[in-house]
Amino acid sequence: MTDSGNPHAHAPGTPTVAVIGDGQLARMMQTAAIELGQSVRLLAGAPDASAAQVAADCVQGDYHELVDLERAVEGADAVTFDHEHVPNRHLRTLLDRGVVVEPRPEALIYAQDKLEQRRRLHELGLPVPPFAAVESIDDAVEFFERVNGAVCLKATRGGYDGHGVWFPEDLEDLKKLVEKLLGDEVPLMAEEKVPFTRELSAMVARNRRGECVAWPVVESVQADGICHEAVAPAPGLPVDIERGTRTLAETIARELDVTGVLAVELFEADGPGGEPRVVVNELAMRPHNTGHWTQDGCVTSQFEQHLRAVLNMPLGSTELAAPHTVMVNTLGADESPEMPLTERVNAVWRRFPHAKIHLYGKSHRPGRKLGHVNVTGSDLRAVRREAQLAAHFLVHAVWADGYREA
Amino acid sequence: MTDSGNPHAHAPGTPTVAVIGDGQLARMMQTAAIELGQSVRLLAGAPDASAAQVAADCVQGDYHELVDLERAVEGADAVTFDHEHVPNRHLRTLLDRGVVVEPRPEALIYAQDKLEQRRRLHELGLPVPPFAAVESIDDAVEFFERVNGAVCLKATRGGYDGHGVWFPEDLEDLKKLVEKLLGDEVPLMAEEKVPFTRELSAMVARNRRGECVAWPVVESVQADGICHEAVAPAPGLPVDIERGTRTLAETIARELDVTGVLAVELFEADGPGGEPRVVVNELAMRPHNTGHWTQDGCVTSQFEQHLRAVLNMPLGSTELAAPHTVMVNTLGADESPEMPLTERVNAVWRRFPHAKIHLYGKSHRPGRKLGHVNVTGSDLRAVRREAQLAAHFLVHAVWADGYREA
Ligand SMILES: Nc1ncnc2c1ncn2[C@@H]1O[C@H](COP(=O)(O)OP(=O)(O)OP(=O)(O)O)[C@@H](O)[C@H]1O
Ligand SMILES: Nc1ncnc2c1ncn2[C@@H]1O[C@H](COP(=O)(O)OP(=O)(O)OP(=O)(O)O)[C@@H](O)[C@H]1O
Ligand SMILES: [Mg+2]
Ligand SMILES: [Mg+2]
Repeated sequence: MTDSGNPHAHAPGTPTVAVIGDGQLARMMQTAAIELGQSVRLLAGAPDASAAQVAADCVQGDYHELVDLERAVEGADAVTFDHEHVPNRHLRTLLDRGVVVEPRPEALIYAQDKLEQRRRLHELGLPVPPFAAVESIDDAVEFFERVNGAVCLKATRGGYDGHGVWFPEDLEDLKKLVEKLLGDEVPLMAEEKVPFTRELSAMVARNRRGECVAWPVVESVQADGICHEAVAPAPGLPVDIERGTRTLAETIARELDVTGVLAVELFEADGPGGEPRVVVNELAMRPHNTGHWTQDGCVTSQFEQHLRAVLNMPLGSTELAAPHTVMVNTLGADESPEMPLTERVNAVWRRFPHAKIHLYGKSHRPGRKLGHVNVTGSDLRAVRREAQLAAHFLVHAVWADGYREA
Repeated sequence: MTDSGNPHAHAPGTPTVAVIGDGQLARMMQTAAIELGQSVRLLAGAPDASAAQVAADCVQGDYHELVDLERAVEGADAVTFDHEHVPNRHLRTLLDRGVVVEPRPEALIYAQDKLEQRRRLHELGLPVPPFAAVESIDDAVEFFERVNGAVCLKATRGGYDGHGVWFPEDLEDLKKLVEKLLGDEVPLMAEEKVPFTRELSAMVARNRRGECVAWPVVESVQADGICHEAVAPAPGLPVDIERGTRTLAETIARELDVTGVLAVELFEADGPGGEPRVVVNELAMRPHNTGHWTQDGCVTSQFEQHLRAVLNMPLGSTELAAPHTVMVNTLGADESPEMPLTERVNAVWRRFPHAKIHLYGKSHRPGRKLGHVNVTGSDLRAVRREAQLAAHFLVHAVWADGYREA
């Protein structure tokens, strides 16, 4: 890790993408870049962050500071992100100076601010839950009545992995929450707590030229606001709903002028006549946890596709490489098991030579995203079981099905 | 690139592999390591070499020098190679000092010295062409007579990509060659020029525990001693020959105590009764050009497998990800085309969204291995054509079939 950039890290005549962020998404963008002969320059907060560990060219700095952003993007062909927390105004400044910011700040705002997103999609006539800005306790009470108490309260900005999402039990609870959060200057909105049957994710990639491709829609299993699993393609999704959902994601990408990968998180719920319908939850304009399956289950991974899209290169095929792929996250257990990580990996591979283990080089913390496992195959039940057992063992050093090695 | 190693490049509790070499094989080992949460420390000759460009931890030095090797392997869990030119005696020294050298120098010698290899395989009763050491012109003349003039003369050490392989036209030519080469102190051997019908490659991986897995045997298309294409699995190879060839490679791995990936280059020839038979050509104990197809065509790539094997971890599934995969090398054209590389890549992707392009970050030189293209699919003719057209365009900026973009 240098503080000034490493000139040797960029082969002449090949593109460089500046990535703001140092997490696992930036890390996996790097593996894609290396295979493509491209290169990444990171803006990282710490030299041992997940992506910084493996970076040949890494600028250390704070993404809130324009000067640090400037150092990171110098000479890069495009700049992109592994999270949505870079101040939008800094990106507008960079854009004004001719830096190729992808996605553009005008698009990114809809991934940064949940209220702006709700307003814009509603305007476009796209399906979102009923919602309202919450600037006072009165706003909250009014919305509570409007949705018969089924309220989901959200921080409009800065949330991730369920931080910034609350489900108040009753009106009293809601009032107390709002009072406290407004006092802490958290910008708030409320929306209907959707009685969804499951969550879906529709991912597309789009480049500046307007070319847009979609991956198959996947089922995403969340718990406590964190993605645990993605099942590709979403099992039992009626063909017309799948097609409609892809089109919805493409429409959002086009209307919002998104470039790079766009993930549309969705709720599947029962429509008035019992038929399934989808409602948009949030947007992410970068590779997304529900797209990790593409690394092993698809011709073009979301990481390669994101680089191609932000560089305005032609997009890759999103054809499946296997009938089914299941991705399960390895989330830090409450306590790190005694068995060293490498032994856990070995045990998983001994039992499942087929399991694709991806690890992020992060130290243990309860609930932290440390890695994921992808399993592909033609028998969905077996694939899913294997991915779940493997991820569970990596985290707990215990086989959830009681299996013992001979 | 640091000269002392980068401590941040290695996440605590995850293995580090020291890789001696800085070419594309080392580069692609790094992408595999990053996804596995592992890390690589390189010994590179230059800071802008293919693998050094993308390395977070890179020691600059000369692999002929023991001190440089020592610096590179310090603290690593295993040391391995991206070529076979490291002096065997240095590796024995490292091994004596407790360094985990994989493959061991006692095995590696059979990939370093073609004469040693021929002797050992012959001793084991495995199929090799008739051969002889050549220490004098008389030795050469004697061998010439023994094989009725069908002589292939080889440098026993230091050859690659056909450098070090000669096919003398007649006895005069042979004598002149031998005189010149012996004068230059090139260590020589002769073997029968095999009238092969095609070349095959059988690849296996083996760890120290003795676990051994084989990939399907592939056809390898060579021209002027350079690999141009690999077709996986080898088309039309009778099942019993395929099985026998895999077993042959496994036997070699076991008998020679090879660890890591072993590539057995083979000739397929007509047996006395017209039935196909295979004869071993050379051994490589590392990922091999004929195994690049595994990156996109197989559950476990040769790069991931090599790391797993040299770390004595369980080996991954070698199941196919697609019925057919064709890999075509992009070898530097006589003159670099005017069209910039990125535009050539774009044109290929516009026509073939399915093509997987791998580039090594190397500058142009005629005949130089600059990258490769993998194409997977179920129609072998289409797959092969696409891979060939794509690689040809990347090199020449011309569609070999006359295609013009609309
Ligand atoms: N309106 C809603 N109705 C019901 N459940 C909801 C609603 N909004 C969010 N949730 C639940 O909370 C989870 C997290 O919500 P959301 O995606 O908005 O938050 P986040 O913290 O930004 O998460 P992410 O890490 O996906 O960015 C959702 O996946 C869903 O399970
Ligand atoms: N005995 C032989 N008979 C016929 N052709 C041969 C013979 N030996 C080598 N060749 C041809 O020359 C090519 C290169 O030979 P070999 O693999 O021994 O050389 P190399 O320079 O070490 O190549 P590599 O890059 O594969 O290490 C072979 O792939 C084959 O096409
Ligand atoms: Mg979400
Ligand atoms: Mg060879």
